[in-house]
Amino acid sequence: MNKQQLIEQIQKKKSFLCVGLDTDINKIPQDLLALEDPVFEFNKQIINKTAEFAVAYKPNTAFYEVYGAKGWQSLERTIQYIKINHPDIFIIADAKRGDIGNTSANYAKAFFNTLKADALTVAPYMGKDSVEPFLDFEDKWVILLALTSNKGSQDFQYLNTGKRLLYQQVLKTATTWASSEKMMFVVGATHPEELGEIRQLLPDYFFLVPGVGAQGGDLQTVAKYGLNKECGLLVNSSRGIIYASNKFDFADRAAEEAQKLQKQMAALL
Amino acid sequence: MNKQQLIEQIQKKKSFLCVGLDTDINKIPQDLLALEDPVFEFNKQIINKTAEFAVAYKPNTAFYEVYGAKGWQSLERTIQYIKINHPDIFIIADAKRGDIGNTSANYAKAFFNTLKADALTVAPYMGKDSVEPFLDFEDKWVILLALTSNKGSQDFQYLNTGKRLLYQQVLKTATTWASSEKMMFVVGATHPEELGEIRQLLPDYFFLVPGVGAQGGDLQTVAKYGLNKECGLLVNSSRGIIYASNKFDFADRAAEEAQKLQKQMAALL
Repeated sequence: MNKQQLIEQIQKKKSFLCVGLDTDINKIPQDLLALEDPVFEFNKQIINKTAEFAVAYKPNTAFYEVYGAKGWQSLERTIQYIKINHPDIFIIADAKRGDIGNTSANYAKAFFNTLKADALTVAPYMGKDSVEPFLDFEDKWVILLALTSNKGSQDFQYLNTGKRLLYQQVLKTATTWASSEKMMFVVGATHPEELGEIRQLLPDYFFLVPGVGAQGGDLQTVAKYGLNKECGLLVNSSRGIIYASNKFDFADRAAEEAQKLQKQMAALL
Repeated sequence: MNKQQLIEQIQKKKSFLCVGLDTDINKIPQDLLALEDPVFEFNKQIINKTAEFAVAYKPNTAFYEVYGAKGWQSLERTIQYIKINHPDIFIIADAKRGDIGNTSANYAKAFFNTLKADALTVAPYMGKDSVEPFLDFEDKWVILLALTSNKGSQDFQYLNTGKRLLYQQVLKTATTWASSEKMMFVVGATHPEELGEIRQLLPDYFFLVPGVGAQGGDLQTVAKYGLNKECGLLVNSSRGIIYASNKFDFADRAAEEAQKLQKQMAALL
């Protein structure tokens, strides 16, 4: 998916909601466990009910790898299901990969060719040649970690590297690797003022913003600091939507929560 | 596996060789492709012939994920095969994971419980709470990226953060999270002088050293700067061993290359 298509979808749905598919069999309705692939079944029902309110889905690979090859199969099925039934939706594999060049090239093939995700989250620590292989795929995206939503973001991301803090340097350097047509950045909702400052520096890039809801971030504040003229935001909610209920009504309750956010987003756009 | 068991194995085999299982079906003997699981078959034969010379195997997850769920199954089979046939060998999942706490906890379960690896490579960018969940498993290890072997290590790892460079700060901070009984560091063979300086700062920690061979690092130099009284090194070679031949004799040729390195290591210990 290219940037224009993403923006058109945002305008059409009046939403910049990304639904995080952090599907944990300990938290889903226990009735589903009798099925052959409970994780996929849960995702399918969540997708069916929330797709009209969301512009992106973000399966988090950890929640699939924990079940080994079987989990990876649930992930494949989930992405395939979205591709077939909602081809206009942007699919982010939240995998936080990054390695030396020939290894990153294999991760790129794994996520863009085999799994057919539109975007992959990538960690910046190993530098340019660990990120470049992901940029060689047409209409596929790197979403680079800049300022993450967790407490540990304080440990290294705020280190003063002379002219700027580490996360600022990551942003400055990485924008020389790719334009806003190929790269986005992760900026946590838990750092609203920094989000505003980053938006000043990078007016054109999309930001993937996790941390709204369970982690304490607030949508109004994120929008105030992060929106640009094309929207420029994908705000993720995982637990607040997919675990709104753990009973038979889980998909309907997820839809309600997704719609609540979508309505707030429509007002903000 | 605990530190003492690893050291005993090094002493017994007179080796600190880690064989990287970066298995790529484009580079393995084409006869194997007719089999049901060519990647596992290749690994099995490599393991059978090289286990006496190596103390560790390091499958790199990218080379498995590229084949989706099927690749993840090859990875499971490979680790299980090593566990059953060579229970004394240290298994490193080279996955470079790291995410917010509840996600890292799932990666830890994926690699330590489901896959049963002994150690996992982890990226430091997201800080303490992204690393801690991996430290909660008995006799399991975090191998944290410090100074990587690739060219991109120059981009951020050498940034001056005031009193020290970023990779030095990562080392200083991370050693407050875990002792040398639970944590190792990745230090690339392509930075021999820095390896010596890191060894001075951290006399007791093991270092996983990639970059010998195809990437240009040299074993003698690595040993000169990196060895400590208990060895303290795991030196990885991937392509130089597993692709020594792409014909029917690949496993024998891999054994020859592994033995060559093992003999050099015996002389250095």
